[in-house]
Amino acid sequence: MRTIEVCLTSDLIHQHELQGKTVVVVDIFRATSCIVTGLANGVEAICPIEEVEEVKELGKKGYLMAGEQGGIKVPEFDMGNSPFEYQSENIKGKKVAISTTNGSRAIIKSEGAHEIIVGAFLNRKSVAEYLLHLKGDVLINCAGWKGIPNLEDTLFAGALIDECAEEMKTVGDSVLMAHQLYVSNHENLYGIANKSSHAERLKSFGMERDLEFCMTENEYQIVPRLVDGELIIQ
Amino acid sequence: MRTIEVCLTSDLIHQHELQGKTVVVVDIFRATSCIVTGLANGVEAICPIEEVEEVKELGKKGYLMAGEQGGIKVPEFDMGNSPFEYQSENIKGKKVAISTTNGSRAIIKSEGAHEIIVGAFLNRKSVAEYLLHLKGDVLINCAGWKGIPNLEDTLFAGALIDECAEEMKTVGDSVLMAHQLYVSNHENLYGIANKSSHAERLKSFGMERDLEFCMTENEYQIVPRLVDGELIIQ
Repeated sequence: MRTIEVCLTSDLIHQHELQGKTVVVVDIFRATSCIVTGLANGVEAICPIEEVEEVKELGKKGYLMAGEQGGIKVPEFDMGNSPFEYQSENIKGKKVAISTTNGSRAIIKSEGAHEIIVGAFLNRKSVAEYLLHLKGDVLINCAGWKGIPNLEDTLFAGALIDECAEEMKTVGDSVLMAHQLYVSNHENLYGIANKSSHAERLKSFGMERDLEFCMTENEYQIVPRLVDGELIIQ
Repeated sequence: MRTIEVCLTSDLIHQHELQGKTVVVVDIFRATSCIVTGLANGVEAICPIEEVEEVKELGKKGYLMAGEQGGIKVPEFDMGNSPFEYQSENIKGKKVAISTTNGSRAIIKSEGAHEIIVGAFLNRKSVAEYLLHLKGDVLINCAGWKGIPNLEDTLFAGALIDECAEEMKTVGDSVLMAHQLYVSNHENLYGIANKSSHAERLKSFGMERDLEFCMTENEYQIVPRLVDGELIIQ
């Protein structure tokens, strides 16, 4: 039976074997929610970048520059890290280079896996269906917040496990803990996510609307996949 | 208001500020359960050691040599890592040097804190009372398993938080997640801990009795504290 496991923060990714696995990268508030929204709304490709300076280099080559540092948009960039910016007509057919505090780094740290896809509540069902039709093992890589596990990414990991557990053998306690967190809160996901440190941080910046949108389930039916360093729709 | 936070595995301890804090080190299966049992049963002091070779050096100086590697007793040592070995009459008044896969390292990694104490279900109430009478901030350092968060240490962190949350401000999502795990399972702590990876591992070595004992609450009314590199009773 194939396996499913969870890494609660990408700072612990070295503890997991990546080779041969499908890695689902998760950064609910807000990088993977933005990536899913952008690709579902016509962005051609999204290139995850570790450092802000590298985004500027791609900007010179025609990429839209996107990203934040500590939750705040980088001033000279075209876009920050709000999913609503990724619904704009202006970005259709364009390529975006994105650097965020946690999410884009988590994607880069997943290199070495058989394949890397991107998950969020916005495309939860599509990701679950994709995983259920695979043959290989699955690792959910939660970005966390600056190396520390966070509630909303763990909650999403639990939601995915809930859909996959009958078909896959769960490996490790992080899977059990994430699943328990989801099961205990599945009737009010927004309520619990709204108590997270990151939610408090974003609310202090006046970004309640972003929180609510990022917790919307199955808004989009796509699975972004990393191909040659760029996320595209499967 | 003073604060309480949780580090879900000592591999993430660098993410937390130690200075000025009381750190509670937790390794339920089985190092901190052994330490509490030993000191409650008359051991004079327990010296946490990182490497097995260093234990042998202390053995030459008259310390009892204790510890395991990967759950198995080191062959030439006097004791392994079972709490029942720490109840023996033969160890009364002796000093013990201990090296374990996770627990003794978590104690050593907590150096730099204002003080380091040791918690387990066996002395849960005493630790909670000690923390409630403090004035400073608290960090619960869960040892985890080889750098990965584990269920039983997180569960104990949640139990402590449950006793302290009214008097302390919780900081970070790991606190919320640990507390939720405890609240969802407080009526059957042994049942959930028994599903953990570490419990499965110990059962495969025939150590069910150890598991059950380690999950016993408030068997001992002591708080081990690190003084000059050795754990003693407060």
